[in-house]
Amino acid sequence: MNKEEALPLINNLLLTADAAYLTTIDSEGFPQTRAMLNLKNKNTYPELTGFFNRIDNFTIYFTTNTSSQKVEHIKNNPRISVYYCKPDEWRGVMLNGEISLVNDQKIKEAVWQENWNMYYPKGVTDPDYAVLKLKPRLIKLYHQLNFFKLEL
Amino acid sequence: MNKEEALPLINNLLLTADAAYLTTIDSEGFPQTRAMLNLKNKNTYPELTGFFNRIDNFTIYFTTNTSSQKVEHIKNNPRISVYYCKPDEWRGVMLNGEISLVNDQKIKEAVWQENWNMYYPKGVTDPDYAVLKLKPRLIKLYHQLNFFKLEL
Repeated sequence: MNKEEALPLINNLLLTADAAYLTTIDSEGFPQTRAMLNLKNKNTYPELTGFFNRIDNFTIYFTTNTSSQKVEHIKNNPRISVYYCKPDEWRGVMLNGEISLVNDQKIKEAVWQENWNMYYPKGVTDPDYAVLKLKPRLIKLYHQLNFFKLEL
Repeated sequence: MNKEEALPLINNLLLTADAAYLTTIDSEGFPQTRAMLNLKNKNTYPELTGFFNRIDNFTIYFTTNTSSQKVEHIKNNPRISVYYCKPDEWRGVMLNGEISLVNDQKIKEAVWQENWNMYYPKGVTDPDYAVLKLKPRLIKLYHQLNFFKLEL
């Protein structure tokens, strides 16, 4: 599969997958995976479409609690992978690289959702509200029996 | 959530999830995730139910090509995680530990499926047919707003 065919397929899966599976590496060197909100999903977060349209297609943002174990893992080792999948359609996209904590309050406000007070009671300035950013170094697409790899 | 509540929920997800997401660590220390066949799925692999009933609930087997990159990763670093998820039901199970290549031909035969000649043309003795085994060291269950952790 060539790049022209692969890029729209990668983009489509990122915009439609139910969840993003984030893997961090724990203090003992073992991977740990968990589901995250897929903020790029157009149906679940239509109000974020504008934000994601203004940045490049493969920069990924996550929101989580600063106090969570995954943030502890990332501070110790920023190397992560994220995986998007539609198993019934044999489609998957893997991206990996070093993830970083976002301190820019404008970005934290841009991705904030109204009902997130249930996770972060103090709102968008809650110190427990963390935003994570990945600019991937490697992308792999699995599309039925096709495969494509992009090193960035 | 206590162990008595958690164990059946973990077991149920392993027996019904569409896929298993396996994360290895590559030679540069970055995680890489991909979907694998969930051989424990009762609907997809009913003929393997007997095999899995004879072993403990949390030992996981995967089949793959010996020549695949994931096997290369594992030979270099056996620390992996596997994740099972039903994102629409907010259910996930993460297991991690050291994975190993199975050399026991009886086990390789026990998990072999008739139509796998398309992956391994030489059949069950094809040197490219690999079986991987995980006895987890850590299990984490995410069940709606509940969480349970088991160290083994």
